[in-house]
Amino acid sequence: MNSTQRINLDHISGNPLLPEVKKAMIVAIEADYGNPSSQHSLGDVATAQIDKAREAVAALINAKVAREVVFTSGGTESVNHAVKGIALANKEKGRHIITSNIEHNAVIRSLRRLTADGFKVTSISVDETGRVDPQAVADAVTDDTILVSIMHSNNETGTIQPVEEIAKRVHAKRKRLIFHTDAVDSVGVVPIDVQTLGADVVSFASNPFYGPAGVGGLYVRRGVKIFPLLDGGVQENNKRAGSENLIGIVGMGVAAELAKRDMAERVTHTRHLRDLLVAKLPDHIDEYIINTNLDHALPNMLSLSVRYIEGESVMLMLDEEGIAVSTRSACATGSLRASHVLISLGLSHADAQGTLVLAVGIENTEADVERFLTALAGIVSSLRNMSPLYSKAKAS
Amino acid sequence: MNSTQRINLDHISGNPLLPEVKKAMIVAIEADYGNPSSQHSLGDVATAQIDKAREAVAALINAKVAREVVFTSGGTESVNHAVKGIALANKEKGRHIITSNIEHNAVIRSLRRLTADGFKVTSISVDETGRVDPQAVADAVTDDTILVSIMHSNNETGTIQPVEEIAKRVHAKRKRLIFHTDAVDSVGVVPIDVQTLGADVVSFASNPFYGPAGVGGLYVRRGVKIFPLLDGGVQENNKRAGSENLIGIVGMGVAAELAKRDMAERVTHTRHLRDLLVAKLPDHIDEYIINTNLDHALPNMLSLSVRYIEGESVMLMLDEEGIAVSTRSACATGSLRASHVLISLGLSHADAQGTLVLAVGIENTEADVERFLTALAGIVSSLRNMSPLYSKAKAS
Repeated sequence: MNSTQRINLDHISGNPLLPEVKKAMIVAIEADYGNPSSQHSLGDVATAQIDKAREAVAALINAKVAREVVFTSGGTESVNHAVKGIALANKEKGRHIITSNIEHNAVIRSLRRLTADGFKVTSISVDETGRVDPQAVADAVTDDTILVSIMHSNNETGTIQPVEEIAKRVHAKRKRLIFHTDAVDSVGVVPIDVQTLGADVVSFASNPFYGPAGVGGLYVRRGVKIFPLLDGGVQENNKRAGSENLIGIVGMGVAAELAKRDMAERVTHTRHLRDLLVAKLPDHIDEYIINTNLDHALPNMLSLSVRYIEGESVMLMLDEEGIAVSTRSACATGSLRASHVLISLGLSHADAQGTLVLAVGIENTEADVERFLTALAGIVSSLRNMSPLYSKAKAS
Repeated sequence: MNSTQRINLDHISGNPLLPEVKKAMIVAIEADYGNPSSQHSLGDVATAQIDKAREAVAALINAKVAREVVFTSGGTESVNHAVKGIALANKEKGRHIITSNIEHNAVIRSLRRLTADGFKVTSISVDETGRVDPQAVADAVTDDTILVSIMHSNNETGTIQPVEEIAKRVHAKRKRLIFHTDAVDSVGVVPIDVQTLGADVVSFASNPFYGPAGVGGLYVRRGVKIFPLLDGGVQENNKRAGSENLIGIVGMGVAAELAKRDMAERVTHTRHLRDLLVAKLPDHIDEYIINTNLDHALPNMLSLSVRYIEGESVMLMLDEEGIAVSTRSACATGSLRASHVLISLGLSHADAQGTLVLAVGIENTEADVERFLTALAGIVSSLRNMSPLYSKAKAS
């Protein structure tokens, strides 16, 4: 990699497609398999392709039977389907839902629709390390609780919740409630085994493990009562109507196979780069806060708040130097409000504004980390020279 | 085309991708544009690609501004978004919805969810030609009516509804109600101009005009109040959350451009083949019913009920001879019940069971039609020789 090549440290906004994924999708386009729902033999190859992809995704998360995997148009649809579909299908059993205060907007806004519809939502706050206390979640369970939705890993910090423990405790308190976890940034990135995870329903997407955007999945344990979000035809075992995005599903299947095969290696590689970045940060900048709970986090993510500057300015200046980073979730782009996730961690609004979300990918190298740190040091230094806040802090 | 090549007369279940569409999608996969929502310049090309596709789709339906087009994961999502999103966003203005009795399951089942939620639905029956009377729809409008949803063309017969006239009359009766039309099998197949159509919201999909399956669109006239179906991020002008299926959208954009350019030629070609089929049918079989209203229909479709036989058997035997046809909507595959569309036309259950849904495509030839007719004649004759019903009918 030469020094003028672009460096992507924003893998949370989008991962490149793996060569094998590209190849499989191109083959699918060229062969043009047709509609898996058609009655005649023109649909047979398409059906076989979808079955194969479903097996690969089921294997990735260790689902007992492939039919427990429903293909969707991505993580957002999966989450909407889970949250709304579980609540509406079980409302005669209760109207109470428990969640955390650091969920993705897909969960937050889906729950807002439900509260407008008469559901009651209890939001459990994370502690200053970014995690919820499993017992606090269990304590919030009442006879009216039908759904608990707590994310697996946070999309801005990478911090992982104690999902197994939460699932165990809430199910001990009320066996019949359904536990959903938004694992969009976890599935395919860290080992997820639905047999030990304890979640009844799991949302995920293909792009976090280098498959195409716009395709995802929902794990629904057999027996869980859930309404479709998309009503209509009988596709996806009657759980999700609509002609399938076959090309995307083929890509997701291949990406799932590779994620399973290469999981350990990817975790080791990205964790090494992330840890290197953390270790070398003090040599390059001072006055920063690490928002990620490094003891419980995705291997590839780091949320970093650089004090006395605007993260937005740093992001744009890094972009000019050919380095892509993010300041927040891609889904919230355009919003001017400080991240609810960072505020929940106890960050001040000013510090939250100085945040960079970094996510390394499998193609990144130590040299990328070095180049980023050098660029960051220069940018932070020049921005702080213009910052009255920083001068004041230094003088005090 | 040699005689052993497969013939696809089931274009309603799935159209092949056009070579130009394949090429554009392969380019998109190889270039791997990234996430249009990312903040840095890595997302710029992706954004430009989506904008370009949106302009092409807007031009196809003559939308005033491209922002009125929302990309979705297909026709089913579009319809669910429209029906549920309009009803829920306008429920304080009223709870009454009007529809027809021949809608696609996506509309029917979405409305079923709404009735469980307190909405009232009036269903207007079609006449024996398969069309609703616009005045009957207008007469059903009350002060409580917020939504009228009548399909543009039927997915089993191809019969086109008098949508312009319905829109005019219902809006004359109550200006504020929102008129949605499910035009999934019409957009890109016949000219649709949203400036003259009169519908406020239009659902459509990419595959009917030879784009990829699993991607579609929703036209939402500026000012129409509608909730998202997918809540979460701010994508699609805040109307549809979730990372975009960029590869599918690129394909849909190219398909839209070509559909606009080649519309007249495709209509002429497919209508010629469909009319040829209709004209030559009497030379090959007797005792059949044409369910399509040929004066008001898509150019490419024909619903044909062959009496005293099972359509399913004909379909399977044609498949063995390399000819693909359908007996019903692909979305209803697996259902054993007679089509509600055919029953609504006054067909007996027995006649409905003998139905073939034929849809010719742009690649079909006169020779395909001839080969189909010859095969059909042989199959119908051999099936009827085994049919006690037919012997009895002949004897009487």
